[in-house]
Amino acid sequence: MIIVMNGKASEDDVEKVIQKLNKMGHKTHISRGEERIVIGIIGEIGNPSLVPLYAFEGVEKIIPILKPYKLVSREFKSKDTVIKIKEVIIGGKEAVIIAGPSIIESKKQIFDIALQVKSLGAKILRGSAFKSPASPYKLPELDEKKLKLLAQAGDKTGLLVVTEVMSADQIDLVDKYTDIFQVGAKNMQNFVLLKELGRIKKPVLLKRGISATLEELLISAEYIFSQGNHQVILCERGIRTFENYTLNTLDLSAVPALKILSHLPVIVDPSHATGRWKLVIPMSKAAIAAGADGLIIEVHTDPANSLSDGTQTLKIDTFTQLMKELKPLIQLRN
Amino acid sequence: MIIVMNGKASEDDVEKVIQKLNKMGHKTHISRGEERIVIGIIGEIGNPSLVPLYAFEGVEKIIPILKPYKLVSREFKSKDTVIKIKEVIIGGKEAVIIAGPSIIESKKQIFDIALQVKSLGAKILRGSAFKSPASPYKLPELDEKKLKLLAQAGDKTGLLVVTEVMSADQIDLVDKYTDIFQVGAKNMQNFVLLKELGRIKKPVLLKRGISATLEELLISAEYIFSQGNHQVILCERGIRTFENYTLNTLDLSAVPALKILSHLPVIVDPSHATGRWKLVIPMSKAAIAAGADGLIIEVHTDPANSLSDGTQTLKIDTFTQLMKELKPLIQLRN
Amino acid sequence: MIIVMNGKASEDDVEKVIQKLNKMGHKTHISRGEERIVIGIIGEIGNPSLVPLYAFEGVEKIIPILKPYKLVSREFKSKDTVIKIKEVIIGGKEAVIIAGPSIIESKKQIFDIALQVKSLGAKILRGSAFKSPASPYKLPELDEKKLKLLAQAGDKTGLLVVTEVMSADQIDLVDKYTDIFQVGAKNMQNFVLLKELGRIKKPVLLKRGISATLEELLISAEYIFSQGNHQVILCERGIRTFENYTLNTLDLSAVPALKILSHLPVIVDPSHATGRWKLVIPMSKAAIAAGADGLIIEVHTDPANSLSDGTQTLKIDTFTQLMKELKPLIQLRN
Amino acid sequence: MIIVMNGKASEDDVEKVIQKLNKMGHKTHISRGEERIVIGIIGEIGNPSLVPLYAFEGVEKIIPILKPYKLVSREFKSKDTVIKIKEVIIGGKEAVIIAGPSIIESKKQIFDIALQVKSLGAKILRGSAFKSPASPYKLPELDEKKLKLLAQAGDKTGLLVVTEVMSADQIDLVDKYTDIFQVGAKNMQNFVLLKELGRIKKPVLLKRGISATLEELLISAEYIFSQGNHQVILCERGIRTFENYTLNTLDLSAVPALKILSHLPVIVDPSHATGRWKLVIPMSKAAIAAGADGLIIEVHTDPANSLSDGTQTLKIDTFTQLMKELKPLIQLRN
Repeated sequence: MIIVMNGKASEDDVEKVIQKLNKMGHKTHISRGEERIVIGIIGEIGNPSLVPLYAFEGVEKIIPILKPYKLVSREFKSKDTVIKIKEVIIGGKEAVIIAGPSIIESKKQIFDIALQVKSLGAKILRGSAFKSPASPYKLPELDEKKLKLLAQAGDKTGLLVVTEVMSADQIDLVDKYTDIFQVGAKNMQNFVLLKELGRIKKPVLLKRGISATLEELLISAEYIFSQGNHQVILCERGIRTFENYTLNTLDLSAVPALKILSHLPVIVDPSHATGRWKLVIPMSKAAIAAGADGLIIEVHTDPANSLSDGTQTLKIDTFTQLMKELKPLIQLRN
Repeated sequence: MIIVMNGKASEDDVEKVIQKLNKMGHKTHISRGEERIVIGIIGEIGNPSLVPLYAFEGVEKIIPILKPYKLVSREFKSKDTVIKIKEVIIGGKEAVIIAGPSIIESKKQIFDIALQVKSLGAKILRGSAFKSPASPYKLPELDEKKLKLLAQAGDKTGLLVVTEVMSADQIDLVDKYTDIFQVGAKNMQNFVLLKELGRIKKPVLLKRGISATLEELLISAEYIFSQGNHQVILCERGIRTFENYTLNTLDLSAVPALKILSHLPVIVDPSHATGRWKLVIPMSKAAIAAGADGLIIEVHTDPANSLSDGTQTLKIDTFTQLMKELKPLIQLRN
Repeated sequence: MIIVMNGKASEDDVEKVIQKLNKMGHKTHISRGEERIVIGIIGEIGNPSLVPLYAFEGVEKIIPILKPYKLVSREFKSKDTVIKIKEVIIGGKEAVIIAGPSIIESKKQIFDIALQVKSLGAKILRGSAFKSPASPYKLPELDEKKLKLLAQAGDKTGLLVVTEVMSADQIDLVDKYTDIFQVGAKNMQNFVLLKELGRIKKPVLLKRGISATLEELLISAEYIFSQGNHQVILCERGIRTFENYTLNTLDLSAVPALKILSHLPVIVDPSHATGRWKLVIPMSKAAIAAGADGLIIEVHTDPANSLSDGTQTLKIDTFTQLMKELKPLIQLRN
Repeated sequence: MIIVMNGKASEDDVEKVIQKLNKMGHKTHISRGEERIVIGIIGEIGNPSLVPLYAFEGVEKIIPILKPYKLVSREFKSKDTVIKIKEVIIGGKEAVIIAGPSIIESKKQIFDIALQVKSLGAKILRGSAFKSPASPYKLPELDEKKLKLLAQAGDKTGLLVVTEVMSADQIDLVDKYTDIFQVGAKNMQNFVLLKELGRIKKPVLLKRGISATLEELLISAEYIFSQGNHQVILCERGIRTFENYTLNTLDLSAVPALKILSHLPVIVDPSHATGRWKLVIPMSKAAIAAGADGLIIEVHTDPANSLSDGTQTLKIDTFTQLMKELKPLIQLRN
């Protein structure tokens, strides 16, 4: 951490900051420029961000040097984290395709979709098991029947399954049926939920919040990691910007950037990022070319009769086309 | 809701959309322009957003006409909602000042601050009762001792108190001590928490998420409202933009805009919005001038020895100055 | 400027960076933390930002310490810049109101508006003198007749006038008629135009670009200033964010922030920032309470028959109301 | 265009809006919902956006149905625009690589780089011919010697050249030396410059402004197009968001989105978008996979002794690696 004193700071001001830092156990180092004095903290024991430095006269700017996360950083562990669930490997050579409907609607629906996406090469089945879409007028209750259907569709087809959990008290129920827990973008900073997921033994697919920086995403991953669960999969799913042709702006630079900053696998959700099914094929290809370890795609066998609006849903023929176009890109990856 | 068919849509495409809508119970109305055909849905019974229209050929754009919230809208209730807690009125003629430290640290700290801010005109005491600041390495646990201190400081001084709740399972504990529940920006879309707060009988101070639109803030308020709790106080606390001189960008237009869209009271948090104590006085004044029903301000009697970094904390002398400068503005309001 | 070397940088890497800096004339200072080595540049002669440091091994981050502008900074000149044009003072005790139509349409229109806003207390008349609104199909040509009408309306009423200039070759023509040159948000980084305006002897009202940081606005002001024209008026007019209820997000924190960073006067344009006439009164009041030196407001005597869409235009009765409500706020300022 | 009347609008309010529209030559069509009356304008002759509808009572919202550009739209011309300059084809089967330094520094520098990038497969040489980088203290003057060197390096190697033009009065000079004019992001809405470029007979590479929507980029292209120059190349180069690990956020969805909306070729600048050379390879690959017609890349043979900071500059070995990794992706494209 570096403290920049403003141009008018006196020697006394500098002295007081140093005394405060020393008193709290931090060693310091002074660098005198011609227009600014800079105080460095050597060896950041404890958390210097908790020192109330802005309360001191003459402090202009405080600049962190170290990153606010550790265990999930590439510096801490240089080798890629590879997550193995049964026969499926995430973060390895092969990019993994996760596919399925927005919402689980019926046995026929989820089984049909599972069979189709499995036969086309998907390895994991997705689907939300909530009773109804989020609405101000109904509680977001989990429907155990839907969870069962998802698990059965997975068993039947040999697909792993992933489904969303929205609060800590839902973890036990979801745990009975899922292979991977999904944390939605809105819950990326639901720290109570993250902590509890840190205590289970299953992988967590952690979606980036729509206005979260990469640093904040990694801090959220650190919450899970620090409790002992090292199976975290990061997911870029679009950030909120002024552009409104797309639902959000898919930040694909996040893929190589997260790979530089962290050892965790990174997947991409082009469906919710763009909110337009016509953009899903090109952005899926771009994600794989950028180095993503996988994709999570919304697919439906009969979107015209589904319960979601279909804006970003691929039909089976489009998903078939996607898988065909992805194949050579996935091969280039190896 | 209006469905715009693209320039190449056939009569058959139009027909299929209309049939689907009719089948789901929606009446329609067609308007034929020279370059586009527009289908209107008359009387939006049920939720037309759940019709999977993008799965149909020829659909270019779907434009909602009605707002996605109802109970909290000005249209539903034209009179301002006024919230009365003991002797304090929020949303009435007088602007209400909420003040206090970031974190409750000790009996002396919270009592000192309470006495000072009370004597300077604050009506409500704020303070977080968590054991430690949010960190990846410790659970965000509530500290009942801190809650007690807060309640005692309130009793002693005659101030109401407000404190944050981060998950539904903390509601009962917090309820024993607080007058007002605060939902932080990170939890604005924690729908489980919102729903549960909808079932209690105390006011909820709902902070806007840093990337939430006004519409989304009002939808979150609707979650609480629809469960029966009509005492919701909206709080603008800065949104995330590219500007980085300030921590966030205080969106003061939100104050009159929310007053047009909704009947709920609106307060402003200039401390966390700007992240710079030097900006707190001018932005507090601006907020009142813009029509805010109150302010929530971070104040500490001894910031140099506090547990937060002090970036946005007012010392007592600055808070005194603020209250003095606010006085004529608050009078103009009446 | 501070160069942070990454955790794996060798002594040799550090040495090479220092040699490069020394060779280019910069003195350095090393600070060795436990996990990072930090190199400071002492006395930033020349422009160290032009040293290609990222081309060197081991460089993790380069952090500027000094600001990228000088002449317009508060540090360079601590006293407020006060601009006096005839009897009007901008940046002094009194807040100045600039008002007028979007586009000059006819003699009757501009004279009517001028008389009305003058009688209600405005000091400066605004109006665009372009032949037609910006459109892909017609060149944005200045209409000298409109410029003349503006100047005449100013003369007749005793109002100063301000009008926009869009390129360097329009300066001479505009100079014949205007008291103040306006640079629109889209031209904030039209450096050729800024430089040329730096060579004239009239004040320049410089609007912030919709995605410009405060730092960039001040750099643009520095372009004008460094050529010798010290009469620059900064104007906050809203930035582009994800919020879409308002046209842009009025960043009122910019007012006190610019006052801290710079000695230049700061005015606010609530009309174009919000794009909604209903928000103009509250945001005007908020701007003055935040410390703005003036306002620029779109007003029309007959908006239903004007050439612009009227979204943000005040009618005379609303402008009358605005001036009445502003009065006590402007008095508080003194 | 659709006009939504608010819930309280009277029949009289509706009538007045219709009369105004009729008077201005627009035919209308009314659609009565249960809670809203919607007025549609049939056949948008003239420009209905110029009708001052917000000045009328009862108008809640005005929603455009048609796009604000025409000639550059896919609807107007369904076939891809292919630009052929000598032997180079932009917008055809093959993706085109543009490479070169940030600034032209010397004959040796530009010739060395030209030879290297040519031998590695680039087709076009880029380089800025300004005397010095943009700075508040020096005018952005073109250096004709640099323009000559660029043209000579192009001739010698058989590369086409592209260089930036910053104002209309520089067009003639640049025209003597360049094959393609580049309009920088800061000038995307310099309408005077765009119009003049619409009158020349050479291709224009138009960069998206850092806070421009796709719609605004296409409107800017329409400015050039409508003057008669149909050779416009769109360039995505990153938009400004809150994320700060990258310089800007590369919006790759813009590539397929622009291909849907327009017939113009689209290239990508991963260097300035990310501002980090380590991200240039993955984002270049992603851009091609997303369907980009080409890339513009910053390359230097000796970045440690260049005049720019090297943050995003590829060295020759990295550019070699890039071209190797791009090859199979470019082949997949055909």
